[in-house]
Amino acid sequence: MSENGGNSLARPLDLLNSAKGKMVLIELKNGHSITGKLVAFDVHINVTLENAEEKKDNDTMRKLGNVFVRGDTIILVSPTV
Amino acid sequence: MSENGGNSLARPLDLLNSAKGKMVLIELKNGHSITGKLVAFDVHINVTLENAEEKKDNDTMRKLGNVFVRGDTIILVSPTV
Amino acid sequence: MSENGGNSLARPLDLLNSAKGKMVLIELKNGHSITGKLVAFDVHINVTLENAEEKKDNDTMRKLGNVFVRGDTIILVSPTV
Amino acid sequence: MSENGGNSLARPLDLLNSAKGKMVLIELKNGHSITGKLVAFDVHINVTLENAEEKKDNDTMRKLGNVFVRGDTIILVSPTV
Amino acid sequence: MSENGGNSLARPLDLLNSAKGKMVLIELKNGHSITGKLVAFDVHINVTLENAEEKKDNDTMRKLGNVFVRGDTIILVSPTV
Amino acid sequence: MSENGGNSLARPLDLLNSAKGKMVLIELKNGHSITGKLVAFDVHINVTLENAEEKKDNDTMRKLGNVFVRGDTIILVSPTV
Amino acid sequence: MSENGGNSLARPLDLLNSAKGKMVLIELKNGHSITGKLVAFDVHINVTLENAEEKKDNDTMRKLGNVFVRGDTIILVSPTV
Repeated sequence: MSENGGNSLARPLDLLNSAKGKMVLIELKNGHSITGKLVAFDVHINVTLENAEEKKDNDTMRKLGNVFVRGDTIILVSPTV
Repeated sequence: MSENGGNSLARPLDLLNSAKGKMVLIELKNGHSITGKLVAFDVHINVTLENAEEKKDNDTMRKLGNVFVRGDTIILVSPTV
Repeated sequence: MSENGGNSLARPLDLLNSAKGKMVLIELKNGHSITGKLVAFDVHINVTLENAEEKKDNDTMRKLGNVFVRGDTIILVSPTV
Repeated sequence: MSENGGNSLARPLDLLNSAKGKMVLIELKNGHSITGKLVAFDVHINVTLENAEEKKDNDTMRKLGNVFVRGDTIILVSPTV
Repeated sequence: MSENGGNSLARPLDLLNSAKGKMVLIELKNGHSITGKLVAFDVHINVTLENAEEKKDNDTMRKLGNVFVRGDTIILVSPTV
Repeated sequence: MSENGGNSLARPLDLLNSAKGKMVLIELKNGHSITGKLVAFDVHINVTLENAEEKKDNDTMRKLGNVFVRGDTIILVSPTV
Repeated sequence: MSENGGNSLARPLDLLNSAKGKMVLIELKNGHSITGKLVAFDVHINVTLENAEEKKDNDTMRKLGNVFVRGDTIILVSPTV
């Protein structure tokens, strides 16, 4: 049910590392969400995506393509398999 | 009534450490909550969960599975055993 | 009228230290409050409680039991002896 | 008219230091205010009071007694002579 | 028209330094303003005033006398000579 | 479909670096957006643009020309090819 | 079309440096704006202006003259030449 077995991931950033190159869902503090392929992240949780789309209430607001998202605007990042 | 006897936990992060691998409830600053199995956390209270669900007013909004939650969006973390 | 005589407490954290193992009231920035027995705290005012209850307008919303509260969501902590 | 003569107080924290043991009014970012006797403060403007009362629109909401107030929730501190 | 000739003030804090002992207007993030005589400030823009008054929509809400204002609640400080 | 092949960009700031001299869309925390040619950025994501326009709901509010945007007001930066 | 040729400005603060002694428009997080002659700034984007006016919806609210603006309240700074 989970690709991460129990405590095998020692640090939270390990999940982001394992999600590189995969599709992720990002929820933003302004209530919007962004989906796209995770390209890179850093310790501030600044993130870059490609093929990104910004959504509001599950409706696509804007196709962004490549995008840099500032970490302090992010609530959560979840791989969408 | 409590698994932690009085002052036996010297630091707040000890509670999070003892909750690894267990189900937790996380309340977010945006009024939502997330439940899931605690996989990892760091000193910023960045947290990763598995089998996570996002809830609003106790209704499940979205099954997230694996998720990274940024620490500065968290109000509290409580083991739900 | 006060258990702390005048300037005998040199630093604000001394009050939290003297409240360990006692019931405290925590007011949160979101307007809720939490009561419980203070187990631990750190310099960020991250706090852990046991037998905690979350309240809104003096009504108990949720029995939390053990809980970690992130310091930056806290307005005040007051021993309720 | 003022106990502090012009530039005789070199740093803002000097005013808080001179207010130790005296009654102060604290205005909070959530619109409430707290009055009480100033016991201690630190560089983050974390403050402890005794005989504290929390007020809203000049009405006492709650007698707090001893209280720790987190500095980042404070707008101003004023000795009330 | 200006007491500060062009680039003669090299750093923003120089303006605050030259305003010590003079009346200033402080606008706060909560929409209120405070007037008073500037006594001291530090690099966080924590400020102390004497003969201070708090105002809302240009009406005096409260005479504060001596007051410590936490820097992170301040939008601007302007000498009112 | 993407100019950035998978993990070839190791850090989020690499995307901003590759966007220098190109048109970008910046979304701000206040709900406005700014378009313009990216001139420079730093680690705080402070950004300077030229030929910038500020928009609200896709309508141009103001032609800004050269502009410095403070990083902590930015949600995302996306090259608009 | 631009006084800054492409990448000739290496850092965002270079734009502010080149704007010293010129009229600038500052947009604030509270929705107001300030215009005035830029006198000084620092790395926090604390700014001092002279002949400053505070505006709301393009109407002058208050003539400020000399003013210190705290950096963390600023969205953008744009030379208005």
